[in-house]
Amino acid sequence: MWCLVTLSFLLLNGVSEAGRTSSYVREALPSLEIPKEDFPPPSGYNAPEQVHITQGDYIGRSMIVSWVTPLEDQPKFVTYWEAHEKKSVDTNGGGIKRNRAHAITTTYRYYNYSSAYIHHATINRLKYNTKYIYELGNGNGTRKFWFTTPPEVGPDVPYTFGIIGTRDLGQTQASNQTLEHYLACRKGQTMLFLGDFSYADVHPFHDNEKWDTFGRFIEKSSAYEPWIYVPGNHELDLAPEIGEHTLFKPYKHRYHVPFRASGSTSPLWYSIKRASAHIIVLSSYSAFSIYTPQYRWLKHELPKVNRTETPWLIVLMHSPMYNSNNYHYMEGETMRVVFEPWFVKYKVDLVFAGHVHSYERSERVSNIQYNITEGISSPVKDPSAPVYLTVGDGGNIEGIADSFIEHQPSYSAFREASFGHALLQIKNRTHAFYSWHRNQDNVPIAGDSIWFYNRYWFPKEETSSNA
Amino acid sequence: MWCLVTLSFLLLNGVSEAGRTSSYVREALPSLEIPKEDFPPPSGYNAPEQVHITQGDYIGRSMIVSWVTPLEDQPKFVTYWEAHEKKSVDTNGGGIKRNRAHAITTTYRYYNYSSAYIHHATINRLKYNTKYIYELGNGNGTRKFWFTTPPEVGPDVPYTFGIIGTRDLGQTQASNQTLEHYLACRKGQTMLFLGDFSYADVHPFHDNEKWDTFGRFIEKSSAYEPWIYVPGNHELDLAPEIGEHTLFKPYKHRYHVPFRASGSTSPLWYSIKRASAHIIVLSSYSAFSIYTPQYRWLKHELPKVNRTETPWLIVLMHSPMYNSNNYHYMEGETMRVVFEPWFVKYKVDLVFAGHVHSYERSERVSNIQYNITEGISSPVKDPSAPVYLTVGDGGNIEGIADSFIEHQPSYSAFREASFGHALLQIKNRTHAFYSWHRNQDNVPIAGDSIWFYNRYWFPKEETSSNA
Repeated sequence: MWCLVTLSFLLLNGVSEAGRTSSYVREALPSLEIPKEDFPPPSGYNAPEQVHITQGDYIGRSMIVSWVTPLEDQPKFVTYWEAHEKKSVDTNGGGIKRNRAHAITTTYRYYNYSSAYIHHATINRLKYNTKYIYELGNGNGTRKFWFTTPPEVGPDVPYTFGIIGTRDLGQTQASNQTLEHYLACRKGQTMLFLGDFSYADVHPFHDNEKWDTFGRFIEKSSAYEPWIYVPGNHELDLAPEIGEHTLFKPYKHRYHVPFRASGSTSPLWYSIKRASAHIIVLSSYSAFSIYTPQYRWLKHELPKVNRTETPWLIVLMHSPMYNSNNYHYMEGETMRVVFEPWFVKYKVDLVFAGHVHSYERSERVSNIQYNITEGISSPVKDPSAPVYLTVGDGGNIEGIADSFIEHQPSYSAFREASFGHALLQIKNRTHAFYSWHRNQDNVPIAGDSIWFYNRYWFPKEETSSNA
Repeated sequence: MWCLVTLSFLLLNGVSEAGRTSSYVREALPSLEIPKEDFPPPSGYNAPEQVHITQGDYIGRSMIVSWVTPLEDQPKFVTYWEAHEKKSVDTNGGGIKRNRAHAITTTYRYYNYSSAYIHHATINRLKYNTKYIYELGNGNGTRKFWFTTPPEVGPDVPYTFGIIGTRDLGQTQASNQTLEHYLACRKGQTMLFLGDFSYADVHPFHDNEKWDTFGRFIEKSSAYEPWIYVPGNHELDLAPEIGEHTLFKPYKHRYHVPFRASGSTSPLWYSIKRASAHIIVLSSYSAFSIYTPQYRWLKHELPKVNRTETPWLIVLMHSPMYNSNNYHYMEGETMRVVFEPWFVKYKVDLVFAGHVHSYERSERVSNIQYNITEGISSPVKDPSAPVYLTVGDGGNIEGIADSFIEHQPSYSAFREASFGHALLQIKNRTHAFYSWHRNQDNVPIAGDSIWFYNRYWFPKEETSSNA
């Protein structure tokens, strides 16, 4: 019942809004790290573990299934079939049309750690809107999961995205609560995960076993609904002091994405179309100034977005461009001054970021008139601008109370220092219902909610529940 | 006689200054590309070519000698000896103490181009302030060059740097004029080259023969005085359409720098100490936001600068942070918002950049009070701030006349749309004479000149010849 948002609550509160800082004080408890022992591997001989899936192509007819095995000698493929076929056949599975997709397998070393075998299999030519069962491993190590493909891309296709942003999904009691809270709601069909995966880098020698336990931790979600991954600063894993110079090494080995399908040259930035949304992933920690690959890619990608096909244009990044928390304040400026003009020009609907210890929703503002010569620099209301949403948790329990900049700036519509997840329920080409749910609420209330109106089809001003 | 700056001219003009845009209109002629045939290889069997040298360590007792040979079968070492020894020995060279430094050899492929053999030999344990002869190749392909090592690092050591910035050193008649003009002056002891090397990337398939002809073009300077290299946008050489994804591939193969000596993990950013200067090279086209390797490196490098040892703190980059030309206007913002606070905190004396079609010198200004929340953003005079110098040429002859932003902004002290080079003559810990020389002047006049006062030892306000 956690996640049952009462729309009436919202409608009763639909008055004109002003920036608000929530007085909600969350319990300062649950940021303790969960010990490795609490994430044991699955039972069975060489059982596949750390299973996660993500969209495998540009349009949603493909899925990348990734898993890890301790040994090399196991079937390096995924077996899959349509779920509905099962009902019409005998209990031994005879007659089910089973298919296989073969994996590429990789390993890596990181200082004194040697990874197990990491497999990535891309399943192609899936039917839209169809539930599939898939199976990994064999013998007593066989494991079975399922996923549902999205509907065919189209302008009025309803679809619901879950959003978990961190600083700190990590592997803490808090992050477990966030994930359980999200799963209990059972509304999300695809997870937008805004970066900072394992937090291995805060442990001695970037203890890469933490990457394994993280993979086990999220499996209850990531094996069943695709996660769209965004690289965060904790994925950099740069440690020259122990000879580790290759940026994003563990991340790139473990989390494969379909970047080539959108013409990208790097897994750190890419895009997908899914249902009625065009989703762009950017990398806050790669080069993005003019002439660089990320800049060139985004410059070509944005004009390709077809709002008649995918009305909802959504950008994901790790470091927020608008943030009025003292933590990481203005870290996103360096990307904002480069990309914000495009976000406004192409009428991006929503920009999601993580990284910060709190939740924040901006007004529709832009600061693109900024001009170093003229000295103009204040963000102004702009109906063509995105709403910036920082869905950051707070693993760090210190300093929450005084973490916001005093005098809430005019660009900030609502902010609160709590853990939580968000849901974006796209209804059609014009309307999407967005809600944010703090972990502490196990009542049918959203900590923040708003009907978003599409910037291309219905660019009206929005009002929120937090007026 | 080109470069003989009359100090009296300067002193007579030492009145208080206001931003000035030069009315000088340069001849709109010489940007034609020089054909490849005009850069033939040297004669002799397998003769070494494209010879260039750069400092090989942190403190100036080492030199990296780089050269190219068409074939592999030649001596892969450089032979070197002190020049003064020659005088005391017989004409056959008997008795000269010859030393060898062995090269590492590399080749690369770029689309349909296969490079010749590129050799890099590091000569260590050189004496300070000493002229050395060095010899490459053998038989009728033997070639001989020389260089002079810098004096030992120290606070009052006089030393003169030449500065050539481009957009467009390239291989044009204009760039040839710039280089000849600089060489005629015979004052520069080390060249600070601000990026954009061969312009191979503007030719079909990034015709890498242009990298070879560029190496031949600059040899008359680069074989005799060290060039400190800065990567520019034309070094990116990203061309996914022909399968070339590795950034800076030709550049990194051809131009080696001592980045590890300063604790850097990439040849694209590093530092050296030379005479009385600490010189920091930054990469405008690599990641530099917080947590990235370049950010981390610079954060640790700046506190290490010892102004008692090297009073002059100089930063080189390709894309300027302060530029009032419409070309590339505000491209440097994305780096400015990250690094400018450190430049002020650590009292950087001078920041040199290229990239733009014109010459510009800033006031000592900073814009670090900028705050997205408060809307304050105008650059203000700041005695702790660097002077920003854009020593850009203009290969592109169109649009020069109207290329500056109207109403010269207050941060801009002097600007002119001309080709040229600059000289920085450090005299001691407090004073350095800086002058900029447009190519068209073959009279002893500097287009711009100023005595710079060291920010650490003598942070007085400066006045220029262009008041």
